[in-house]
Amino acid sequence: MSDFIASLEAIVGVDHVLSGDAAREKYDHGWLPQYKGRSQAVVRPASTDEVSRILSLANTAKVPVIPMGGNTGLTGATMAVPDLNAIILTVERMNRILEIKPQSHVIRVEAGAILDDIRAAAEAEDLCFPLVFGARGSCRIGGNLATNAGGSNVLKYGNTRDLCLGLEVVLADGRVMNLMSELHKDNTGYDLKNLFIGAEGTLGVITAAVLKLVPLPVEYATAMIAMDHVEDALGLLNTLDRLSGGAVEAFEFMPKSYCDLLPSALPNLQPVFDPVPEVTILVELGATSERDRRFLTEMLENALMGLIQEGRVTDAVVAQNESQRAEMWLRRESTFEVAGQKGRTLDTDVALPLEKLPLFLSRANAETAQAAPGSEPIYIAHLGDGNVHYSLWMDNHDPASHDRIVEVIEDIVDDLGGSFSAEHGIGLMKLPTMARRKDPVALEVMRGIKRQLDPNAIMNPGKLLPDET
Amino acid sequence: MSDFIASLEAIVGVDHVLSGDAAREKYDHGWLPQYKGRSQAVVRPASTDEVSRILSLANTAKVPVIPMGGNTGLTGATMAVPDLNAIILTVERMNRILEIKPQSHVIRVEAGAILDDIRAAAEAEDLCFPLVFGARGSCRIGGNLATNAGGSNVLKYGNTRDLCLGLEVVLADGRVMNLMSELHKDNTGYDLKNLFIGAEGTLGVITAAVLKLVPLPVEYATAMIAMDHVEDALGLLNTLDRLSGGAVEAFEFMPKSYCDLLPSALPNLQPVFDPVPEVTILVELGATSERDRRFLTEMLENALMGLIQEGRVTDAVVAQNESQRAEMWLRRESTFEVAGQKGRTLDTDVALPLEKLPLFLSRANAETAQAAPGSEPIYIAHLGDGNVHYSLWMDNHDPASHDRIVEVIEDIVDDLGGSFSAEHGIGLMKLPTMARRKDPVALEVMRGIKRQLDPNAIMNPGKLLPDET
Repeated sequence: MSDFIASLEAIVGVDHVLSGDAAREKYDHGWLPQYKGRSQAVVRPASTDEVSRILSLANTAKVPVIPMGGNTGLTGATMAVPDLNAIILTVERMNRILEIKPQSHVIRVEAGAILDDIRAAAEAEDLCFPLVFGARGSCRIGGNLATNAGGSNVLKYGNTRDLCLGLEVVLADGRVMNLMSELHKDNTGYDLKNLFIGAEGTLGVITAAVLKLVPLPVEYATAMIAMDHVEDALGLLNTLDRLSGGAVEAFEFMPKSYCDLLPSALPNLQPVFDPVPEVTILVELGATSERDRRFLTEMLENALMGLIQEGRVTDAVVAQNESQRAEMWLRRESTFEVAGQKGRTLDTDVALPLEKLPLFLSRANAETAQAAPGSEPIYIAHLGDGNVHYSLWMDNHDPASHDRIVEVIEDIVDDLGGSFSAEHGIGLMKLPTMARRKDPVALEVMRGIKRQLDPNAIMNPGKLLPDET
Repeated sequence: MSDFIASLEAIVGVDHVLSGDAAREKYDHGWLPQYKGRSQAVVRPASTDEVSRILSLANTAKVPVIPMGGNTGLTGATMAVPDLNAIILTVERMNRILEIKPQSHVIRVEAGAILDDIRAAAEAEDLCFPLVFGARGSCRIGGNLATNAGGSNVLKYGNTRDLCLGLEVVLADGRVMNLMSELHKDNTGYDLKNLFIGAEGTLGVITAAVLKLVPLPVEYATAMIAMDHVEDALGLLNTLDRLSGGAVEAFEFMPKSYCDLLPSALPNLQPVFDPVPEVTILVELGATSERDRRFLTEMLENALMGLIQEGRVTDAVVAQNESQRAEMWLRRESTFEVAGQKGRTLDTDVALPLEKLPLFLSRANAETAQAAPGSEPIYIAHLGDGNVHYSLWMDNHDPASHDRIVEVIEDIVDDLGGSFSAEHGIGLMKLPTMARRKDPVALEVMRGIKRQLDPNAIMNPGKLLPDET
């Protein structure tokens, strides 16, 4: 056993340094099959002080450290790149809800708190922590913060960044920076909090946070809407948001190509619309006042009836109970089942200015058909926030062809003022794109900040920032 | 004429380099009488390219540059400290609204655009840019961004930071960094945008921005509410926000000491409540749907009637028309007239965790009475966001006594987890406090970032960051 491992054990106890292959297995495997790492050890601190001592030790020894939350990311950001001899620092034991203040709408949590546990703690006080996406049962808030996670409610509540009031961070050399503010106004110098949010563990380890809560909706009104043209969807969103006084929480787009495959993915469900329309929208409104409890569903019904008469919408179904609502969401959230039916896909996670999304789709469909004959697009979009998960089935899985097609898609995104990473981040997966497409001055500034905060480059090396060429 | 001035003239034209005393006068004077600067010249670029060339020139010559918007700040952040031979770079000629996209709710503006002009452009499209405070007719968005300005609507819409999607920044050496995103999701590296927002011009010059717009309320419901105890106000806010489905836009607190002085400040207005209650709240709700047009006022009336019966509120008046609404706001916004009646005040701008605000007030009133016998507190608070403008009339105006009393107040703020600068920033005024009270690790990190981005220390030197000791 190395002196370094012995020193780690002295900090956290022998039970919390995992160095055997079997014990490390689940940490060295990400959610995605393509990433298989090899760490020298996994260390499981129980407190900020232990994190501080671990980083101080690693910094002196120049041992790379990979911070890990729930290990549910989609870009390989927590993979221990083989040969770097890195340690994985998991915050899984630092999973407490520290305090909830119902009147002030804030909750203080440790970085390892599981997203669903935070949501449950808020709901017990009739409040809501509105961050929500598929991995919510196992992802941890530290990872959500480190990647600035998005999801389906960003339209109304923003990304993780927008839901965070304060942070505690351990820097690369072990110094603890206390930014645990509960304040809504705090103009005392540079915004360091937002620098660490979204930094993917390359600048330090987030150990605790203060999060904002919102009133828990008393009821939801949820509908599936059929339209002919996706170009008309943004107008529909604005109309419904106006009519409801800003109650739209989600506005999700499913094209015909996706809905056509739903029956085989979900054989027990009948199609919502027959024939399947070009555009299906899932809209959800949240009533936060008792007065709106029955109103929103009624409003949605009346509004959609009117829109059908005007010809802006071709058909619509409003959920009449919780099980119908759940079924609508099941259709939307069965993306893996739907996409998995025809084999492997090439995946992207792009964002567009809201009004450019239809143009992106038509260009991407046309240009990928030309660049990759026989490929078929499959996608859904968080239309309310401009985020499209645009994928392609391809026969050809050699990496060079994939890279070429990703280039085609990202060229269109660039041309339309979009982003090549909307909500998943950079990690390992998008490093080449980052090198090619990020504003070069911004990249230089990022590198300068990285050098300043982590001079020994021990924090999650090889992620987020491409090497200088 | 120096070579340096000649070079500036070559960039912007002779008409736009002001070096005479008279021409510089209004730029060398801030809004506050205590700050009187002396620049070597004021330069007025018309484009980002000109800003870039000016900074490149100044960086090479190591001439300090002070970026200036509307020069309406309250901390001396735009003062040209005498003897530094600085130039003031005003963005006043870069004042265009570049584009508005009504469907996507975004507006692109140059940094010199006046806040009220942005608000008017939004309103013409039935939208609202919700940043609002006293200086809105002359402040410029570049300054609002550089100071992360707050105001009365932060409760619902957030600070300037929360309303900004994208930025263009010229760095100290003249490099232009393009972060002009219109996107709601964009996870491509460190959050550099928020690093420049609130940096008070010490890291670069903001030259353009993309801002978020929101639906323009169709009607407001506004009321003055009398209560016995400020401790009950947060519960009232939560009740009204729930009943209205999140429509509360402002929740302002005026204590008896303030209202007692209103008749002499505004002799034409009758007191709202007689006798004057311990606590007067100004609440405003915004209706963003047609359905709520008449409802909100009615709801407020019914709710307040119920709260009076329950004894949670002692009296209330709901505005019945726009002129009554305007009168209510006039009472709230006459702080300078009210505070000016008894002579000079010592002023602070602090923020507290929401539930701690009443405790702060009682402790501050007691401890300042003891520390400064004969002093009298005068304050109002943005109660919904925890921001108190706590001032004191004092007979004694020697700086040492002032500093001692500010210490007393800030000790209480510290003790309760608050901030010594809520919305005004640091500038020159709060440098000593910054040195004493900011988390020391955070200060070190800030200094590292400053060195990295501005190695010649030309950007607004001597502001925001205290000298290392």
